[in-house]
Amino acid sequence: LKNAIKAGKVRAPTHIVSTICDDRGEEPTYAGVPMSTIIEEGFSMGDVLSLLWFKRSLPKYCTRFIEMCIMLCADHGPCVSGAHNTIVTARAGKDLVSCLVAGLLTIGPRFGGAIDDAARYFKDAADKGLKPFEFVEGMKKKGIRVPGIGHRIKSRDNRDKRVELLQQYARANFPSTRYMDYAVTVETYTLTKAANLVLNVDGCIGSLFLDLLVSCAMFTQHEIDEIVDIGYLNGLFVLARSIGFIGHTFDQKRLKQPLYRHPWEDVLYTNVESSAQPR
Amino acid sequence: LKNAIKAGKVRAPTHIVSTICDDRGEEPTYAGVPMSTIIEEGFSMGDVLSLLWFKRSLPKYCTRFIEMCIMLCADHGPCVSGAHNTIVTARAGKDLVSCLVAGLLTIGPRFGGAIDDAARYFKDAADKGLKPFEFVEGMKKKGIRVPGIGHRIKSRDNRDKRVELLQQYARANFPSTRYMDYAVTVETYTLTKAANLVLNVDGCIGSLFLDLLVSCAMFTQHEIDEIVDIGYLNGLFVLARSIGFIGHTFDQKRLKQPLYRHPWEDVLYTNVESSAQPR
Amino acid sequence: LKNAIKAGKVRAPTHIVSTICDDRGEEPTYAGVPMSTIIEEGFSMGDVLSLLWFKRSLPKYCTRFIEMCIMLCADHGPCVSGAHNTIVTARAGKDLVSCLVAGLLTIGPRFGGAIDDAARYFKDAADKGLKPFEFVEGMKKKGIRVPGIGHRIKSRDNRDKRVELLQQYARANFPSTRYMDYAVTVETYTLTKAANLVLNVDGCIGSLFLDLLVSCAMFTQHEIDEIVDIGYLNGLFVLARSIGFIGHTFDQKRLKQPLYRHPWEDVLYTNVESSAQPR
Amino acid sequence: LKNAIKAGKVRAPTHIVSTICDDRGEEPTYAGVPMSTIIEEGFSMGDVLSLLWFKRSLPKYCTRFIEMCIMLCADHGPCVSGAHNTIVTARAGKDLVSCLVAGLLTIGPRFGGAIDDAARYFKDAADKGLKPFEFVEGMKKKGIRVPGIGHRIKSRDNRDKRVELLQQYARANFPSTRYMDYAVTVETYTLTKAANLVLNVDGCIGSLFLDLLVSCAMFTQHEIDEIVDIGYLNGLFVLARSIGFIGHTFDQKRLKQPLYRHPWEDVLYTNVESSAQPR
Ligand SMILES: CC(C)(COP(=O)(O)OP(=O)(O)OC[C@H]1O[C@@H](n2cnc3c(N)ncnc32)[C@H](O)[C@@H]1OP(=O)(O)O)[C@@H](O)C(=O)NCCC(=O)NCCS
Ligand SMILES: CC(C)(COP(=O)(O)OP(=O)(O)OC[C@H]1O[C@@H](n2cnc3c(N)ncnc32)[C@H](O)[C@@H]1OP(=O)(O)O)[C@@H](O)C(=O)NCCC(=O)NCCS
Ligand SMILES: CC(C)(COP(=O)(O)OP(=O)(O)OC[C@H]1O[C@@H](n2cnc3c(N)ncnc32)[C@H](O)[C@@H]1OP(=O)(O)O)[C@@H](O)C(=O)NCCC(=O)NCCS
Ligand SMILES: CC(C)(COP(=O)(O)OP(=O)(O)OC[C@H]1O[C@@H](n2cnc3c(N)ncnc32)[C@H](O)[C@@H]1OP(=O)(O)O)[C@@H](O)C(=O)NCCC(=O)NCCS
Repeated sequence: LKNAIKAGKVRAPTHIVSTICDDRGEEPTYAGVPMSTIIEEGFSMGDVLSLLWFKRSLPKYCTRFIEMCIMLCADHGPCVSGAHNTIVTARAGKDLVSCLVAGLLTIGPRFGGAIDDAARYFKDAADKGLKPFEFVEGMKKKGIRVPGIGHRIKSRDNRDKRVELLQQYARANFPSTRYMDYAVTVETYTLTKAANLVLNVDGCIGSLFLDLLVSCAMFTQHEIDEIVDIGYLNGLFVLARSIGFIGHTFDQKRLKQPLYRHPWEDVLYTNVESSAQPR
Repeated sequence: LKNAIKAGKVRAPTHIVSTICDDRGEEPTYAGVPMSTIIEEGFSMGDVLSLLWFKRSLPKYCTRFIEMCIMLCADHGPCVSGAHNTIVTARAGKDLVSCLVAGLLTIGPRFGGAIDDAARYFKDAADKGLKPFEFVEGMKKKGIRVPGIGHRIKSRDNRDKRVELLQQYARANFPSTRYMDYAVTVETYTLTKAANLVLNVDGCIGSLFLDLLVSCAMFTQHEIDEIVDIGYLNGLFVLARSIGFIGHTFDQKRLKQPLYRHPWEDVLYTNVESSAQPR
Repeated sequence: LKNAIKAGKVRAPTHIVSTICDDRGEEPTYAGVPMSTIIEEGFSMGDVLSLLWFKRSLPKYCTRFIEMCIMLCADHGPCVSGAHNTIVTARAGKDLVSCLVAGLLTIGPRFGGAIDDAARYFKDAADKGLKPFEFVEGMKKKGIRVPGIGHRIKSRDNRDKRVELLQQYARANFPSTRYMDYAVTVETYTLTKAANLVLNVDGCIGSLFLDLLVSCAMFTQHEIDEIVDIGYLNGLFVLARSIGFIGHTFDQKRLKQPLYRHPWEDVLYTNVESSAQPR
Repeated sequence: LKNAIKAGKVRAPTHIVSTICDDRGEEPTYAGVPMSTIIEEGFSMGDVLSLLWFKRSLPKYCTRFIEMCIMLCADHGPCVSGAHNTIVTARAGKDLVSCLVAGLLTIGPRFGGAIDDAARYFKDAADKGLKPFEFVEGMKKKGIRVPGIGHRIKSRDNRDKRVELLQQYARANFPSTRYMDYAVTVETYTLTKAANLVLNVDGCIGSLFLDLLVSCAMFTQHEIDEIVDIGYLNGLFVLARSIGFIGHTFDQKRLKQPLYRHPWEDVLYTNVESSAQPR
């Protein structure tokens, strides 16, 4: 068959289409850039990520911002849902991939996975010119929590250092921080409602990535919409926190921790709504 | 190409080989048995599992035993590693598959996944005619815990009801319980060492499945070795507990439980062995 | 601390709430039913599932229907997305849980996971009394494919045997098949549009489960809405197909299949939309 | 209770121990280094990884090597097992985390997960001073393939560029490349047996990481053994390839690819060894 295909006698329709990496030649290329260029020209990890996700080389202030997001989100202690799952799995004696994956599966709307939604809603509201109170109260009417706002621990008087560092960097290096500025006015409003309704790290990254995409002038409007629609930005948190989850796995194995069992006395066994009646 | 293949002009070498289920005809068949036969002849779930895993129809006392294993292992409360991970993931607002999977990933040597190893070691020791103390002390010398022995909660005076129910059934219905009897003599010995070194549910199923495979006389010696080598038996626990993990997911969603965060005061932050020195 | 809690000196607020299985007593109970009752009274797997998912014992015609759904969906050959992923993972030499999980992760809107959505939309349309064409064209206007309708392979003249068998059983045993009848009128309409727009197995189970929930008269209206909202029904497919995915794992290991690599000539490497410009 | 604990009235034994990241203070610290230091002193991703995995700051030539490993392993096209699973899952319409995870689960002994084993065996053989032919033939006798040797596609005359780039870097920057040199002599020997028995990227990274750990003089002998025993090094590949798997997910979604079904004609349905006999 292979010969027949080569000889052009039969046309085999392909079942897979792929565009980011070509592994057929002498050396693999990422969005057209060969491996040796990546090493010889001193690319950084942010550069490689840009090639594989966005299929283009972004300016240095953008790739450094990507790396900062990843470094600042790389871990946040053992208590968060994801690290906890990873720790429990490591203590069950499972392999590295299983431990990492058990942690990743908690990433979603309530933990680390609100970056895309934050970008979507902030973009929509800012583009429409909604006043913060119009936006927040409108969301409330629809029964949707503003993504990117709120934290279990952080609050007005106990700010999230990660958010501050990213904002500082962007103010100093981005041509424009229009979307982030909008998000901050939203935070100002929500903080009048409750002290823990701060702009969280998801909301900060979500709004700043909009600023990045617009200000670097390397994406069409259609491409920006696509990135936001498809939801690229949660990928930053997912990749970042993988570093931490892998670290927690090694940590538990190094500490030779035994099988975890949640303490009985921490569980409320209840059956109020049940109507189970054995036959 | 399809036409060329049909016409026999080109021979396309296949890249996949598969034997358990044929979906090409009018109706799918499981190991050769069509769907309509399965329904019309009143097959049970144990029958279907036999067809897809063992590629043959086992006698009723075997398939009922399989169903009993699955029913008795279907859940064991919210505190075990797997259910806990599932609960944490459900409370992070994730979809059913993610919640189930986060739980499944904890199944392994220390939680629910010792059935195959128990079968391997008990088979080897019983076939060699090792005395229980020779076997147990030999394992100790190799630094291996006897799989199928030991429980975090159960003990001599707080027996595992599941183990008792399976043993009763087997004594009443199996032609022979030689391997289980051997495992019980091992338990008698380990209980002299510590009260929680009982024959656990993994060890009970592992030894009884050996009895099932031998006593039904439908497998060659080579096939039994292959089943034990490849490790089919953990599949029983994995499938069984999936029922419970799915149940826990629904339970948490019904209870509208919020994001879980492990309490800080339950964590010992330590850094004794570290030598990290920021530059 | 435990003593202090027992002595009632400190009140420890619990962090976990759970209702389906109590493992604290002499023997675990599923929704209040002890293990020994389950075995002694000859419960089936459908009974156990009812206890753990629905927290009640359903009538025999319901639990047999649940078992039929599971048996008929247990496998559908090696070519579907999920089995394919499982096979690839098994051929990479990974453990059983990893292989199963890689398959499960494909279950979703396009493969096996449309049961809940089918139930939601058919319930809404039937309860509102929408004519099939109103319903289908209304969905089209919203740009949503009717869940439960359509198959990659099956069509008007190549019916899905599984659908037929479930329909037959329900007609013979259910007090009412109102929702399924509605789904069939929808199919009649969509078949006028294209031959592969049949009622698929997701749609069949989704509509029949509505009939089951209503006709057994053991659920309040609120409870039925909750089951449909939370999305219990995909759980049936997930559990069922786990049997097949585990079977495929064993099959590949038995066949000693080597690492899978997708053939290069089946991939179209393209870069049309890219604008990657190495610096 | 919290007050009682604070007041020192009850001692609550902690159930979790953790050492890599402290999130309790004003700002999180990675192995003692606060977030603001990481940003202000211009740490790179390799630096952060060192802190979270190895709990110390490694010299620049080490962290650059770590970054090179990650960049070179970030992707290797759509045909390898992991990318293929990710693509199939993305085409089933699943969320980013599910797609990534389905790919990660293929990483193991045959795909990307032989780095630790390579390090283990090369270390053992080199430390014992085994001649390459003694080592390779000894492994053969034990029936174990030499991890880190062999590739499905690469061969003597079609070298893996990634391996070459890493070797060049190490020769120019590492104080010693003793383990890598040993691995190369092994390759020289295996290449006399078959042309595809090259030192693969797993073997290259595995041996060079040994050189890194020894040559930087920041780890005790015991710590190096622990790193190799626990298996830290596969973590590099796992993290690296996550970038690619996330990229493939976005790529498929951008391309709006439909549900994948493996072509029937590429499957050999066989049942030779079966003895299934429907009752
Ligand atoms: C992060 C989060 C889960 C923390 O939740 P929490 O502290 O457990 O908050 P609670 O669920 O107890 O809610 C407390 C109150 O604040 C309100 N609230 C919480 N988050 C809100 C938000 N994002 N927007 C508006 N109101 C919010 C709640 O509606 C609730 O008000 P109520 O008592 O009148 O009903 C929550 O803020 C949230 O879902 N945020 C949006 C998603 C997000 O960004 N997640 C990523 C976080 S890294
Ligand atoms: C189930 C299990 C994890 C419970 O462990 P645990 O209660 O946390 O036990 P510990 O780790 O505290 O061990 C206590 C002592 O019992 C010994 N021990 C535990 N399990 C043993 C076994 N299976 N065989 C022999 N000795 C055992 C330990 O070596 C230890 O002895 P030591 O103090 O002299 O070192 C453990 O018994 C085990 O690993 N069993 C084998 C695997 C298995 O069957 N797992 C499935 C369980 S469903
Ligand atoms: C199952 C399914 C993925 C098969 O898709 P497919 O054969 O690849 O179909 P295509 O994507 O090529 O669509 C072909 C045409 O049928 C239409 N179509 C497909 N499924 C449809 C549905 N459920 N309702 C209405 N129209 C549908 C498409 O819109 C398309 O029309 P167009 O060419 O005018 O755009 C698809 O029917 C579907 O998404 N169904 C709904 C979800 C579902 O039930 N999934 C579980 C299946 S087990
Ligand atoms: C990578 C790998 C899976 C490629 O396998 P493959 O091309 O499918 O090789 P095959 O299984 O067809 O083996 C062909 C022959 O080479 C031999 N061989 C393959 N890899 C070998 C190795 N690492 N050491 C010694 N001999 C090896 C086989 O034993 C076989 O010999 P035989 O025909 O006499 O039995 C295989 O080389 C391997 O398992 N390597 C070790 C693990 C590893 O490093 N994996 C990570 C790769 S990124």
